[in-house]
Amino acid sequence: VALRHQITKGLIKRLRKVVGRPWLLTAPADLIPYSRDASGFSAMPEAVALPESAEQVCELLAICSSEGIPVYPRGAGSGTVGGAVAEKGGLIISMVRMNRMENFSHVDLLCRVGPGAVTGAIQKEAERLGLFYPPDPASLAFCTIGGNVATCAGGARAVKYGVTRDYVRALEVALADGCLVRLGSEAAKSVAGLDLARAVVGSEGLLGVITGITLRLLPLPQEVRTLVALFGSAQMALEGVSRLFQAGLVPRCAEFMDRMSLSAILEGLPFKVGHDAESLLIVEVDGSRAAAAEDAALASKVLAEAGALDVRQMSGPRDRQQLWQARRGLSPAIKRLGYSRKVSEDVCIPRSAMVAMLEFLQGISRPEAAILTFGHAGDGNLHVNLLLTQENAGDEALIHDIVEKIMEKSVELGGTISGEHGIGMAKRDYLPLEHSSRVLALERSVKEAFDPKGIMNPAKMFRQ
Amino acid sequence: VALRHQITKGLIKRLRKVVGRPWLLTAPADLIPYSRDASGFSAMPEAVALPESAEQVCELLAICSSEGIPVYPRGAGSGTVGGAVAEKGGLIISMVRMNRMENFSHVDLLCRVGPGAVTGAIQKEAERLGLFYPPDPASLAFCTIGGNVATCAGGARAVKYGVTRDYVRALEVALADGCLVRLGSEAAKSVAGLDLARAVVGSEGLLGVITGITLRLLPLPQEVRTLVALFGSAQMALEGVSRLFQAGLVPRCAEFMDRMSLSAILEGLPFKVGHDAESLLIVEVDGSRAAAAEDAALASKVLAEAGALDVRQMSGPRDRQQLWQARRGLSPAIKRLGYSRKVSEDVCIPRSAMVAMLEFLQGISRPEAAILTFGHAGDGNLHVNLLLTQENAGDEALIHDIVEKIMEKSVELGGTISGEHGIGMAKRDYLPLEHSSRVLALERSVKEAFDPKGIMNPAKMFRQ
Repeated sequence: VALRHQITKGLIKRLRKVVGRPWLLTAPADLIPYSRDASGFSAMPEAVALPESAEQVCELLAICSSEGIPVYPRGAGSGTVGGAVAEKGGLIISMVRMNRMENFSHVDLLCRVGPGAVTGAIQKEAERLGLFYPPDPASLAFCTIGGNVATCAGGARAVKYGVTRDYVRALEVALADGCLVRLGSEAAKSVAGLDLARAVVGSEGLLGVITGITLRLLPLPQEVRTLVALFGSAQMALEGVSRLFQAGLVPRCAEFMDRMSLSAILEGLPFKVGHDAESLLIVEVDGSRAAAAEDAALASKVLAEAGALDVRQMSGPRDRQQLWQARRGLSPAIKRLGYSRKVSEDVCIPRSAMVAMLEFLQGISRPEAAILTFGHAGDGNLHVNLLLTQENAGDEALIHDIVEKIMEKSVELGGTISGEHGIGMAKRDYLPLEHSSRVLALERSVKEAFDPKGIMNPAKMFRQ
Repeated sequence: VALRHQITKGLIKRLRKVVGRPWLLTAPADLIPYSRDASGFSAMPEAVALPESAEQVCELLAICSSEGIPVYPRGAGSGTVGGAVAEKGGLIISMVRMNRMENFSHVDLLCRVGPGAVTGAIQKEAERLGLFYPPDPASLAFCTIGGNVATCAGGARAVKYGVTRDYVRALEVALADGCLVRLGSEAAKSVAGLDLARAVVGSEGLLGVITGITLRLLPLPQEVRTLVALFGSAQMALEGVSRLFQAGLVPRCAEFMDRMSLSAILEGLPFKVGHDAESLLIVEVDGSRAAAAEDAALASKVLAEAGALDVRQMSGPRDRQQLWQARRGLSPAIKRLGYSRKVSEDVCIPRSAMVAMLEFLQGISRPEAAILTFGHAGDGNLHVNLLLTQENAGDEALIHDIVEKIMEKSVELGGTISGEHGIGMAKRDYLPLEHSSRVLALERSVKEAFDPKGIMNPAKMFRQ
């Protein structure tokens, strides 16, 4: 089916009727904020609808489906791979008004949320009730849970607690043709039929629009202890992470920063960093008071034995908060290092391969195309940032070459080209490095099963 | 595509050439053990192949695919829904020779296993190394991990640790046409492309033959504490489970038995049970020594406050082992209660709905069609056993009517028709109670994407 890529005046009228006049945007000034996400990609949509219910979403989809109009579901636009960018024109459906948070249950350890609910708000509401929603992407203060499900968002706590997938019980999804389906089950276990709910998790808006989510929750851990350890080399820091696991610990976080990352946020840290420090680890453990204390003591000992220059425990919630604020601000802070362009990758490899990966990265880094690495070392998930000086910022061939080398190395080491950001527009040309042509063909045919007309986020993930 | 349902002599020759003479069975006496699983269903396959490598599996599939021969992957045949039964004739591929267990890693918390590896053997090897593979279906002493992945097997520890899905990192799958693909990633996190690995988990052999599995492991918990609590009513016991969660505990197990279940295994228990006991809970907590002790004390207190007649802690590993042996032997022990036929269901509902479910079951139970209930109450997963006296054992209409009522109730209470056993032949007529016709159509089209000729386990899950 050929997509029309053009919304006529008559269509605008029909779409407006569905959501109401204030909730269909068509004026260029109104569309601009929807033309980009947190990647460098941008494209103007022809219209943006802000529905308030699953029924409205279905009506919008039914119209777009019958008319062959491309549709892009969008949360907060915090994605880093262009997943929400209206590359082929058409309609963006913003889910931000569908932000209910309800039915938090201590007995069932569940809550029901709308896709537009802000992840951080869900976490706060859970914590207020003594409950815990673990996934914590760095953008949690503004990203939405629908986007988290669509990208299977991770975060620092994934080491112990897993990713968004592990907290999705049931989904309500509006299919491309406007039919509303319920996938998964609110029961703790269900093996009825094929597991289409998990196929939708991480599907980046290719399979439908998520209109409702039942999340699994945990009881809030009684205590969290936060350690920071400075190392004389990045290799030693990563080796320290491996030693934690060898000692039988699974920390809730084990964050790594190399020297350049450290230098980007130095002033924001709640402690002094000496000149000999080439790398920082943030290690968090949690559990009951006794368990957290025990694990913190063991982690301190292991990190000291691994050769840390200094291991200290954050003394209170204020220091902790300041530390994490600095960590979550790292990605934007890199922009202040004076380079003209930043290209961010997020490879993920088995932990045992991290040192090999790091040495590879150090080997290809050069002054005019420097590599800054930080990330969720507890998962082997390294955020590799290629930083380009002004004279190289436009050299797409150079960039492509370096990025491809990094991804090839990740796959060679048993890893993946994306640990948590997704494919979108940014990595679709690299996906064949990881997935065989047969697997890609299978993925396309599953996409077709859900969206035979191909209107949902067209040409994302794999080119059409 | 019409399936031929008949393996000619010429075909037998070709199949034999793939696996070698001793590993292709065609004599009726050799086929009988493969004609049934742990359900009541049976059908004779035309041949059974026992390949030793993924390459052999692919060659077998290529032949069957080109000739339209139905194929049934099979592990230990411990499934309870007829998933491994050769209902339409054709070839059973037994995976038991592909039972390697290797690459156990403390740093990566992974191991690689063949589909024929016995789940209990994987667990023992992991434990020997201080590692932990949590899923523990009652058949763990003989069931295979390939079958566990194909059915997304659960078990008693799912309460805290989740199900097989949560431990599958990467899969090697032979597709229906004989092409070998790798799905998922050995990295701790991967969001590259659509999540086809999780679509295969729980797909009951409909999408391909699993030939290799990378499992996620955990460090072995330092200590396990096991409590048993007797209650004067089943309702109070289930209420006790809810109270554990309200108190912020997530036990690793919370097993429930009603009076009839108790009576079936009474002699095997390592303690005396008074006449006033109508129900038994087994509650296990684990973690560090301190954490396990703390949680055991809290659980004891909560269960006592919930009105338990008696709460006691198992004193040592011997009592624990005896208790679990009795529990795992419960399903076969039911057969000794004197009824002529047992029909087993495994509904799963939100925990908060368990008492309502139980009262519903008590309401429909009658002497000639009694209902015995036990199960993983911590998950809301109740194994409901319909027990029929001789005069009713053949009354299919009566049985269908009762089973349908139970399943309808489960769905009405927000639950599922199967928590961990799957659909297979046993529940395919009931799946429409839970999945809408649109969802079923989607599932069929995903099946078609993987297996366009429909040779893989035909007519299971949904009739064709």
